[in-house]
Amino acid sequence: MFIFVFMTKETLIAQIKQKQSFLCIGLDVDLDKIPQHLLELEDPIFEFNKRIIDATHNLAVAYKPNTAFYEAYGLQGWKSLEKTIAYLNEMYPEIFTIADAKRGDIGNTSTRYAKAFFEKMNFDALTVAPYMGQDSVEPFLAFTDKFTILLALTSNRGGLDFQGLQTHGKKVFEQVLQKSQTWKGVEQLMYVVGATKPEFFKEIRKIVPNSFLLVPGVGAQGGDLEAVCENGLNKDIGLLINSSRGIIYAGNGKDFAQKAREKAQELQSQMSRILHKNQ
Amino acid sequence: MFIFVFMTKETLIAQIKQKQSFLCIGLDVDLDKIPQHLLELEDPIFEFNKRIIDATHNLAVAYKPNTAFYEAYGLQGWKSLEKTIAYLNEMYPEIFTIADAKRGDIGNTSTRYAKAFFEKMNFDALTVAPYMGQDSVEPFLAFTDKFTILLALTSNRGGLDFQGLQTHGKKVFEQVLQKSQTWKGVEQLMYVVGATKPEFFKEIRKIVPNSFLLVPGVGAQGGDLEAVCENGLNKDIGLLINSSRGIIYAGNGKDFAQKAREKAQELQSQMSRILHKNQ
Repeated sequence: MFIFVFMTKETLIAQIKQKQSFLCIGLDVDLDKIPQHLLELEDPIFEFNKRIIDATHNLAVAYKPNTAFYEAYGLQGWKSLEKTIAYLNEMYPEIFTIADAKRGDIGNTSTRYAKAFFEKMNFDALTVAPYMGQDSVEPFLAFTDKFTILLALTSNRGGLDFQGLQTHGKKVFEQVLQKSQTWKGVEQLMYVVGATKPEFFKEIRKIVPNSFLLVPGVGAQGGDLEAVCENGLNKDIGLLINSSRGIIYAGNGKDFAQKAREKAQELQSQMSRILHKNQ
Repeated sequence: MFIFVFMTKETLIAQIKQKQSFLCIGLDVDLDKIPQHLLELEDPIFEFNKRIIDATHNLAVAYKPNTAFYEAYGLQGWKSLEKTIAYLNEMYPEIFTIADAKRGDIGNTSTRYAKAFFEKMNFDALTVAPYMGQDSVEPFLAFTDKFTILLALTSNRGGLDFQGLQTHGKKVFEQVLQKSQTWKGVEQLMYVVGATKPEFFKEIRKIVPNSFLLVPGVGAQGGDLEAVCENGLNKDIGLLINSSRGIIYAGNGKDFAQKAREKAQELQSQMSRILHKNQ
């Protein structure tokens, strides 16, 4: 039996080593894309997530619902999100849970978001946008048993529009990495760095050698796992590679969960090989 | 009777002129701060908002719930938010409604947020963080009968941490203003500029002479209305001045709505004087 108090970096690393996987599965549920037979159930979003999680939990170390997909369905969507995180916490407490919400506001307001995701729903981690600066992020870091995953370099086409601007000899996203390393609660900080920009990982690792990086963009967005790992891995592994659409929509029939498992298995096998090579 | 199809910049300006007010009231509801007698009701958050709105609607042109305060109460909070926007839409369709949610994500995900706030809840406007660049914002602008209010220069202490970095002879927030002016759907763009930094308004107006600015930070955060208006007003007025705590928590007893009205009246009177002076 797994005795569990709260998630630490050490428990995350132990889980990665045990599962030989640093896979995070993005639960971006779209009712237009899930198998039609689920739509007859009372809560199709939750039922979809439950089946995906049950089928993949020993291949992945983290799940990451993107809140936008739930909010788009209003109250019912929010309820599905609450049920999903409750299910993860109850059934798979070793799993690292990330609310991909990209929040961030002035101090007293950021505290509210932190309460929503860390207390009310008991996620282990939350993605946060850095645009508003130090005092918009530190309220999240004040939750010392939780993790704040700051957007640094994102995987989308326009990621470099502002993140890539040169300023005092550094790009804006490098400033975000560097400045945030001086903030109170830094040991609870992780960063989002997109897999679509592997050429930046070497420089990023010079600034944040010890931090975990959450890496979206492998799969549907075209990022390459090997290229990311080459410069992204650190002594603690230090990477969480996210795949959403590529896994959860691998199948569309009654066997969708099995198809998702097969895709997750492919990635886990690659990760296992990479981990062995780097030992 | 008010015949209403959807909100345009022209209807907003007409409302400002009619009410002699460019006041936006922030509905940042904290159950620890609202009058205790409301806690006996089934939905205290909505009941509080309803009374504040009923007491102030002819002094304000916009209401701005900050989503963090609702999310912190989970499902019940989300329900209160839905009821609040439904009430505004039904009872006061002329009012400009802003979801202060500071969202922003990769394209397909931003579309989900847009659906949540523009379609599901029918807000007129949404605040959006620019960190992820053009393709993270344009999905909001694609809703051509809605407004996207982009964070430019925020009112908090750390606002300048990244927004103030010098890059190619301009500050990052000036790059946000300038670049976003070339994006598709620019006529639906407004900007957040904090009242706590009035010295920047002159330069900002050079870059975005015609855009509406949503200005938080007057009141509790110490911003000065006169100083903001001096350089912030444009030919269309072009300002929405937000006050949250200073108005909604003006009183704490049975007469809290009346106290809120008095505070709103003070600001409206100042605004009326300013508008007359600038005519």
